[in-house]
Amino acid sequence: MTTQAVLLAQGNELTTGLTVDTNSNWLAGRLWELGLEVRRVITAPDRRDDLVEILGQAATLAPVVISTGGLGPTRDDLTAEAVAQAFGWPLQLDEEALAQVVARFQAFQRPIVDANRKQALLPQGARVLENRWGTAPGFSVDPPGGGRMYFLPGVPREMKPMFDAHVGPDVLARNRIAAPVTVTLRVLGVPESVLEEKMRGLDLPGLEIGFRTMLPENHVKLRFEHDVPAEARAEVVAQARARIGWRAFGVDSGDLAQVVGQALAERGETLALAESCTAGRLAGWVASVPGASRYLLEGAVVYSNEAKVRTCGVRPEDLDAHGAVSEEVARQLARGIRQRAGATWGLGITGIAGPGGGTAEKPVGTVHVALAGPQGDVSHRRYHFPGDRERVQLLAAAGALAQLWREVGGGAGGARGGRGRDLTQKYMFRPMLPWKAPG
Amino acid sequence: MTTQAVLLAQGNELTTGLTVDTNSNWLAGRLWELGLEVRRVITAPDRRDDLVEILGQAATLAPVVISTGGLGPTRDDLTAEAVAQAFGWPLQLDEEALAQVVARFQAFQRPIVDANRKQALLPQGARVLENRWGTAPGFSVDPPGGGRMYFLPGVPREMKPMFDAHVGPDVLARNRIAAPVTVTLRVLGVPESVLEEKMRGLDLPGLEIGFRTMLPENHVKLRFEHDVPAEARAEVVAQARARIGWRAFGVDSGDLAQVVGQALAERGETLALAESCTAGRLAGWVASVPGASRYLLEGAVVYSNEAKVRTCGVRPEDLDAHGAVSEEVARQLARGIRQRAGATWGLGITGIAGPGGGTAEKPVGTVHVALAGPQGDVSHRRYHFPGDRERVQLLAAAGALAQLWREVGGGAGGARGGRGRDLTQKYMFRPMLPWKAPG
Repeated sequence: MTTQAVLLAQGNELTTGLTVDTNSNWLAGRLWELGLEVRRVITAPDRRDDLVEILGQAATLAPVVISTGGLGPTRDDLTAEAVAQAFGWPLQLDEEALAQVVARFQAFQRPIVDANRKQALLPQGARVLENRWGTAPGFSVDPPGGGRMYFLPGVPREMKPMFDAHVGPDVLARNRIAAPVTVTLRVLGVPESVLEEKMRGLDLPGLEIGFRTMLPENHVKLRFEHDVPAEARAEVVAQARARIGWRAFGVDSGDLAQVVGQALAERGETLALAESCTAGRLAGWVASVPGASRYLLEGAVVYSNEAKVRTCGVRPEDLDAHGAVSEEVARQLARGIRQRAGATWGLGITGIAGPGGGTAEKPVGTVHVALAGPQGDVSHRRYHFPGDRERVQLLAAAGALAQLWREVGGGAGGARGGRGRDLTQKYMFRPMLPWKAPG
Repeated sequence: MTTQAVLLAQGNELTTGLTVDTNSNWLAGRLWELGLEVRRVITAPDRRDDLVEILGQAATLAPVVISTGGLGPTRDDLTAEAVAQAFGWPLQLDEEALAQVVARFQAFQRPIVDANRKQALLPQGARVLENRWGTAPGFSVDPPGGGRMYFLPGVPREMKPMFDAHVGPDVLARNRIAAPVTVTLRVLGVPESVLEEKMRGLDLPGLEIGFRTMLPENHVKLRFEHDVPAEARAEVVAQARARIGWRAFGVDSGDLAQVVGQALAERGETLALAESCTAGRLAGWVASVPGASRYLLEGAVVYSNEAKVRTCGVRPEDLDAHGAVSEEVARQLARGIRQRAGATWGLGITGIAGPGGGTAEKPVGTVHVALAGPQGDVSHRRYHFPGDRERVQLLAAAGALAQLWREVGGGAGGARGGRGRDLTQKYMFRPMLPWKAPG
């Protein structure tokens, strides 16, 4: 029987649409990974009567209740009061909580005011949950009925480490849950419906599969019950990866820019970019990885034809003959920027991001990507991406990076080349399973 | 007395953390703008007993209930059944809904299957809400107690126009609400706490002020009751804007890249960018605006010192003497890229995004931005941005664009120059109020 949980989120900023409640999403994902089932998420404004009613109801719905928000020093922060009222416990100054608040303020060298002392007023019987990431302590209480309620601050950078430090382990121990193991496959360029199709029949007792779309990636989450042997897990992960092919670029990894960057760094190779329609998006993405200066030598945003000619040596007669959005120009961009920067790899991107500029022959979403490599070879691919300008630019940048990934990591040798070696060791990859490359 | 509302969101993808519930956030914001108060947001998995219980409870909590999700063709889509069960109405085939579903499938030239016909099974007495953006019709019902419940699909691009077409107007009419008028000031580089301080004392009967942080921007939302005269509204908007100064770059406008782009296009001016630590982020942002090719001539991602020298003519001896992250190099980047591209304006950015590379003298977050202008002048500003790599890059790009905005739109002439003219007309701007520029 799966243990159930209820999430509460408090704050007027949530019920007026000023802030998206990302806390509940994060907690729901964590609880799924821990093998719990979220039965309800209840969001309410900072109003005491409603909070009291919700707390009373939540205690009857599930043995695990996790609340975020309402622990701050202002008079809108009503959580401790509402808990006290809901279950008939007096509020009292908790010395341990007060000591923690005082210590935090001393560490920040900030004066403490009475409003902050209020943060140490907890319902009688509450256990303090130390907040080493901010000033508001959390706490837990055991309401009638046998469950436990956890109260965490609403600031995500405090809430998340507090959950992992105090709440997750306590929930598992108290409810005698053996935590499952979750493995995330990160995939580029395969739609969720195709991934679902590919995972069909990948059965194992104790395996649950979830899908998540986070443009430009899709994630396949494989959740194994604790008693699935490690070898069986590794076998399933390897099978899932093989069914998807090289586009499954990572297992519990960073994003594509991190994975490609790591491959380049390991190989001692470098990269230069010439971007027209993506206009620096790809460079920005590649450079979002710490240490990217080791391999990203140069990028050029060659929006105008003059810039294409000047910076990458594109031939004006080819611009005239084929147009700026053409295979020929993409190839010259890739070759030109590679030579200019003296890089191992050169990527050239030219396309029509829209909303204007499309024609019958070259509709909005048409993108040419060329990759110039160390052997003097230049590969090319033509895409037609659906969606608005934002989406076309994003998918074009991702498509270009995927072309490079195929060469430096996930290439023709499948997962055996580049990064694949690590994965072979870690997941005992067996590249013999039948699969076909999507797209 | 403010009319209250309850939001329901259904779907296992929400309670397992696979999808962030952005629908409820969007609806909460819209309802705030319409003058309603969201009393609760309840999210539940696709489980019938829970849905029945929640629907019954929601009907007692508020006269307006809006539900998203659960209207699709699969057996997980339980909404209509749950409504029927909760209030004791039989499910029946709704001919109007069926005709709409059939028409949509014909328009898409897709065959209709029995599962789709299920989407036309509605509780007796339901009113169909036409879905012109997808296949699942919505509906509304009137449960005992006098309220009305609206059921919309979970796909945001269907839900949002359906709300605006069917639900918003009906909610206002049925509850005799005269819709307020909401004006959004968009601000760059002024923290929310400072904005709250600046808005203090900006009082008017019927005015509510909300604050929203959407990095790199902050928004000030001014909500006026319907009976506030237009002149009084305009006066308050102008006062609020004047209190913030030139950093309040837009009123109900697009983002800073759109506003700056429009100013450049109107002035017939052009831009070139040399980015080191932001590495193309600013170019990508500027180019996110349709038609940016009119003014964005060229961008250079000059990550390596060689690229700085080669592309922007930075003097190697200055790199040696001052380091790559210095005022001198920023100025040479700005001047060099402007000359190279033949642009009106040149922006140069160099800094330390981290996490590595910081020193005591130049800690992580140090960023130099220089702007070269048409008079041969180069202005410079040094920043120290807090936060991680992602945040430093984002704030550096935004800071650079703000420097340009000050010149082309929000400049020394306050809101009287550039864009200010439009605003004068639209909001009867009175630039005589006292204000001081923040930062």
